[in-house]
Amino acid sequence: MAVYTQVDDAELIAFLATYDLGDLLSCKGIAEGVENSNYYLHTSAGSFILTLYERRVAETDLPFFLGLMEHLATRGVTCPQPVRNRAGEALGRLAGRPAVIVTFLDGYSVHHPEPLHCAALGDALARLHLASADFPLSRANALSVGAWRPLFAPAAARADEVEVGLRDTVEAELDFLERNWPRDLRSGVIHADLFPDNAFFLGDRMSGVIDFYFACNDAYAYDLAICLNAWCFDDEHRFEMEKGAALLSAYQRVRPLSAGELDAFPTLARGAAIRFLLTRYVDWLNVPAGALVKPKDPREYLAKLRFHQTAGAFL
Amino acid sequence: MAVYTQVDDAELIAFLATYDLGDLLSCKGIAEGVENSNYYLHTSAGSFILTLYERRVAETDLPFFLGLMEHLATRGVTCPQPVRNRAGEALGRLAGRPAVIVTFLDGYSVHHPEPLHCAALGDALARLHLASADFPLSRANALSVGAWRPLFAPAAARADEVEVGLRDTVEAELDFLERNWPRDLRSGVIHADLFPDNAFFLGDRMSGVIDFYFACNDAYAYDLAICLNAWCFDDEHRFEMEKGAALLSAYQRVRPLSAGELDAFPTLARGAAIRFLLTRYVDWLNVPAGALVKPKDPREYLAKLRFHQTAGAFL
Repeated sequence: MAVYTQVDDAELIAFLATYDLGDLLSCKGIAEGVENSNYYLHTSAGSFILTLYERRVAETDLPFFLGLMEHLATRGVTCPQPVRNRAGEALGRLAGRPAVIVTFLDGYSVHHPEPLHCAALGDALARLHLASADFPLSRANALSVGAWRPLFAPAAARADEVEVGLRDTVEAELDFLERNWPRDLRSGVIHADLFPDNAFFLGDRMSGVIDFYFACNDAYAYDLAICLNAWCFDDEHRFEMEKGAALLSAYQRVRPLSAGELDAFPTLARGAAIRFLLTRYVDWLNVPAGALVKPKDPREYLAKLRFHQTAGAFL
Repeated sequence: MAVYTQVDDAELIAFLATYDLGDLLSCKGIAEGVENSNYYLHTSAGSFILTLYERRVAETDLPFFLGLMEHLATRGVTCPQPVRNRAGEALGRLAGRPAVIVTFLDGYSVHHPEPLHCAALGDALARLHLASADFPLSRANALSVGAWRPLFAPAAARADEVEVGLRDTVEAELDFLERNWPRDLRSGVIHADLFPDNAFFLGDRMSGVIDFYFACNDAYAYDLAICLNAWCFDDEHRFEMEKGAALLSAYQRVRPLSAGELDAFPTLARGAAIRFLLTRYVDWLNVPAGALVKPKDPREYLAKLRFHQTAGAFL
């Protein structure tokens, strides 16, 4: 659920008057995205999504995110397009927040991806990597290997409340990853959060990608490892070989992995597991007792980390 | 915020296949209604609202609510219309819940109603009362005068945590209302929860009424008193005469109040204040400490009750 900021109708009408989008017909808060407030917006010009950026998104990063969505669309990647107001600006202000209107994208998230969905994802991810190669802006990955220990250290003391031994497991894994993290892989703009929630399908066809607010510059193969972890395990967190193979082979049909990327992949997959294990753990720590929002379970990513620690090369 | 039940895409597609609504294009949880889970639903046949009924709504009441919406539409009251599936049923089951698809209604809620909005509401409320007069089903008001003491008694001990003296105030008011509650007023189906959230506007024109899940049989003038409390006070809970006059005179242009209704109105307004004071107080008690959902402040309705206790007849 993500509607943190309420929008007053009179303010919204004044905001909309700066666009060529006709009259306000409807505006409803929607449960999409976790970092920002999102609204389904219906005007006499059509359907849109209104996003208000909350404090976890740095305002200085917005030109990167919005520019990326525009760049990708010109290269054939279907994603929401920022709508510019009459002054030519994509970014405005509403209810005291940076605000943007983007086009509405049909499609729905698949709750239980099948191999055919994983193949569609692999194809789309590779095309996204190729399409972003000439995007002129860049943004460092604030959640890469160098960020993990500073994220975990202040929270380490309570780790064994999640599972006995978690603190030792994480610290040993961080030692391994800091020593072995691959540095020379082909890099560029990655989505970095392409979970099933952020991929839209219409039937068997992938219809678009949303939520670019973790996008950054990092190794392409790391993005693929994030997707493998998010799409190719079952509800009991067991790896599903058929889905993994579908994802990786579809990706490679568009952008073949180099020998170096293949060698590094098991390490990247461990890193992709610990990155979500750590942010979920920190979110879990910070949820007040009795809160109505249920945090995602960090143990899901502990199970995935353990799989990658014991699996050999599987490519 | 109200998305209590998550809907799986495959289950939704199977559910939709029982309707003549074409293919699923999009489905997003929306922050509308407080008792049920609601989704914006886009299919190749258009836009709809999908509602899953949660446990606070009794399944046996659903034919009343759905039938009322259909009845009102045939009498010219704009409200969401249940869509029937191929078997002719409005009520189905999805994700283990009773579920219904209703038509999507354009319009938006007015956060700070002006007198012109109050007048539009008064007109619409009177028309709703006339339109429901020949609705054949009935439903007792589970939150009328007889319900207030049983609601308050088990929670009374903590009332002074809201404000010192609240327990005595409520108990004295219940004594007054139980002795003086009017019994012979013109009655029929009332909305019973027509707050600004549940009235849609397009510009200055009221475009529809939503959320009939408190509708019941009770005195029409009590419904008007609920609206007076919800629409005609400012942000500091002070009565605004101009708005009150606009509401009441617009209502009376369509359905004039009888001498008995006018006499009873101050008492009905006190009852309408205590009804929302009590449910907000009980909700406030039951919200866990630190919860991310902010309960509505019961003191708003304490202020309104005090106004009506001291005001004379104002009609």
